[in-house]
Amino acid sequence: LSKTPNKFTIFMYTILEFAKEDIGRVTFSLKVGLAVLLVSLLILVQAPYQVFGTTIIWSILTVAIMFEYTVGATFHKGFNRALGSLFAGVLAIAITELALMGGPVAEPVIIGISIFMIGTVTSFMKLWPLLVPYEYGFRVILFTYCLIIVSGYRMGNPIRTSIDRFYSILIGAIVTVAVNTLIFPVWAGEQLHKELVKNFNSLADSLEECVKKYLADDASDQPVFVKTLMDEFPDEPAYKRFQSTLNSSAKLESLALSAKWEPPHGRFRHTIYPWSEYVKVGTVLRYCAYEVMGLHGVLHSQIQAPYDLRFIFKTEILEATSKTAELIRCLGKNICDMELTQKCALLKNIHDSIETLQRAIDLRLFNKDDAKDEMNYQSRKQS
Amino acid sequence: LSKTPNKFTIFMYTILEFAKEDIGRVTFSLKVGLAVLLVSLLILVQAPYQVFGTTIIWSILTVAIMFEYTVGATFHKGFNRALGSLFAGVLAIAITELALMGGPVAEPVIIGISIFMIGTVTSFMKLWPLLVPYEYGFRVILFTYCLIIVSGYRMGNPIRTSIDRFYSILIGAIVTVAVNTLIFPVWAGEQLHKELVKNFNSLADSLEECVKKYLADDASDQPVFVKTLMDEFPDEPAYKRFQSTLNSSAKLESLALSAKWEPPHGRFRHTIYPWSEYVKVGTVLRYCAYEVMGLHGVLHSQIQAPYDLRFIFKTEILEATSKTAELIRCLGKNICDMELTQKCALLKNIHDSIETLQRAIDLRLFNKDDAKDEMNYQSRKQS
Repeated sequence: LSKTPNKFTIFMYTILEFAKEDIGRVTFSLKVGLAVLLVSLLILVQAPYQVFGTTIIWSILTVAIMFEYTVGATFHKGFNRALGSLFAGVLAIAITELALMGGPVAEPVIIGISIFMIGTVTSFMKLWPLLVPYEYGFRVILFTYCLIIVSGYRMGNPIRTSIDRFYSILIGAIVTVAVNTLIFPVWAGEQLHKELVKNFNSLADSLEECVKKYLADDASDQPVFVKTLMDEFPDEPAYKRFQSTLNSSAKLESLALSAKWEPPHGRFRHTIYPWSEYVKVGTVLRYCAYEVMGLHGVLHSQIQAPYDLRFIFKTEILEATSKTAELIRCLGKNICDMELTQKCALLKNIHDSIETLQRAIDLRLFNKDDAKDEMNYQSRKQS
Repeated sequence: LSKTPNKFTIFMYTILEFAKEDIGRVTFSLKVGLAVLLVSLLILVQAPYQVFGTTIIWSILTVAIMFEYTVGATFHKGFNRALGSLFAGVLAIAITELALMGGPVAEPVIIGISIFMIGTVTSFMKLWPLLVPYEYGFRVILFTYCLIIVSGYRMGNPIRTSIDRFYSILIGAIVTVAVNTLIFPVWAGEQLHKELVKNFNSLADSLEECVKKYLADDASDQPVFVKTLMDEFPDEPAYKRFQSTLNSSAKLESLALSAKWEPPHGRFRHTIYPWSEYVKVGTVLRYCAYEVMGLHGVLHSQIQAPYDLRFIFKTEILEATSKTAELIRCLGKNICDMELTQKCALLKNIHDSIETLQRAIDLRLFNKDDAKDEMNYQSRKQS
């Protein structure tokens, strides 16, 4: 019995830590609670209930479905829902009018065929690569269309049904957007910006860490790659942080998609801010990360070059590494501060130090007839 | 005017090609159409309508929301929806009973507070990393709870409302599962299996392609990496296919999550099939892919080792590469055929050829005093 409160304390402590780690999580949860409470009040309180009636329950559904973590994602989902509902509503009314003309026998047949068609066409369209981000919109079209046309058939007056439902959804959408935007808004753009800068820094850290380990005398004692792959490398803190950069593709893309829906805010004041450029920079950065992963693989492979050999080029390797890390950090800082400092010198430094390294390797490998090959190399370079 | 039909033809042709590329897309679309038609018939036809009434429209919503591409994903979403609805229903009934005891003044207050609490708690829980796959379930709890408790407050008899709605959702779920499982089912497990095998083969192809290009005489004329990164490399077909391997993490994980929900089928007859192992193998394979990307980066970097230098180790490099590619293909085939052939010889071959390459490099770099270093190397190896 004495253990139970103890376990419970640990559990509560874990939750508290999780909340503290990013206070935005708590704010988000409270915001959702507030939003559903607000729309529920429209039914619970007598005055608005007499105005709106029971169709207002659709606004609860809208809040629960539309409320996303970032402002941009909420707008994106709201747009999908609004446009989908509108399109489905108009289409349902048109088909109902058509079906009514067919008489009482043809009416259910026409409605049935139209439901089958809508189901097939929307499902096919949402598989189209360009339309995948709007997948939710097609789902909304499908169920809204079915709901309106079917309840119209049984309860009559589909136009009234559609308009009521549309008002109701609109109220839900307005509450969601207002709560999400006005109370501690979390901007997808801001998150994207921070994420990219973080990726720059962890790339630089990880590069330096890898090279340092490679040149350390005990590098041949590194645990073998495959065996420890699933575990963490406890002595490589930078590498651990860096892992997320490798799979950042989906995260950056979804943040950029959301960010496009956000109005100008904070430091991002241009009306058409080039969010897709962030994704492109992220892709280039990920390609650099693959190179670092290549180095990391070398570090933990079973067959190692002897230490003496690694030591030969130590100066050149360290030089090239520190210059590269410096440039990466500088670029990250530039993006962070949103300013362009012309650091051509840094790039030239890297180029020079890598060329020095390459030439050291060339010389060493060809050292039986240094002079000849050096000449070869120079002529190659000039041509 | 003459151009319009032309453009339309092209458009239709593109769609036709898209459908032909994977006939499963058409089947999926027709299946969704069929499923919504079937549930709609429950309202459109007089006999079932008299039994079920208008609450049956909830089954339409269920079909539209639950119907996913693979069987496993449908089960996963269905489970979320069913458990979420059940939990929300039971909770709503309990709170309603509690609120009724509070009298007419306290009732709406208790309901309001409970809605706020449910909104906050479910939103917080779905941020918890372990619960992220069940995000949709928490959404269902939230809106089902609100709908039941609010409509119960205004229309009375929440138990009747809950049970009706639960039946209706159950019918929708049964129709969805039946159509999705019985008519040309698409199994997530099968897709995961194929995807992993495909990744093995494209890794082997890409490795060979990279090395072949590196050793070709015109390798120094390769376009520089950064400039062409966003474009494709038209002369590297294997690399292009291989790209998807790099970002396969999310795809494999979601397929494995879906596959866990599938009953034994086809070649996967064990009741608890180790789908998560596919994700682990995929991760190891992705780490190999990073190494190949490292090579690809070397291929397109601005500073290149002179051709003579690359040529020195040509035999050893080619040997190591072809052995490695052979092993990767063999492993892929083993997974494809689901059998284990003991190919230790292959692994030993690779090990030997890489050691030969490493020693060739060592010798070349230390060739001023070969004998001494070779001795060094041998003693190091034995220790």
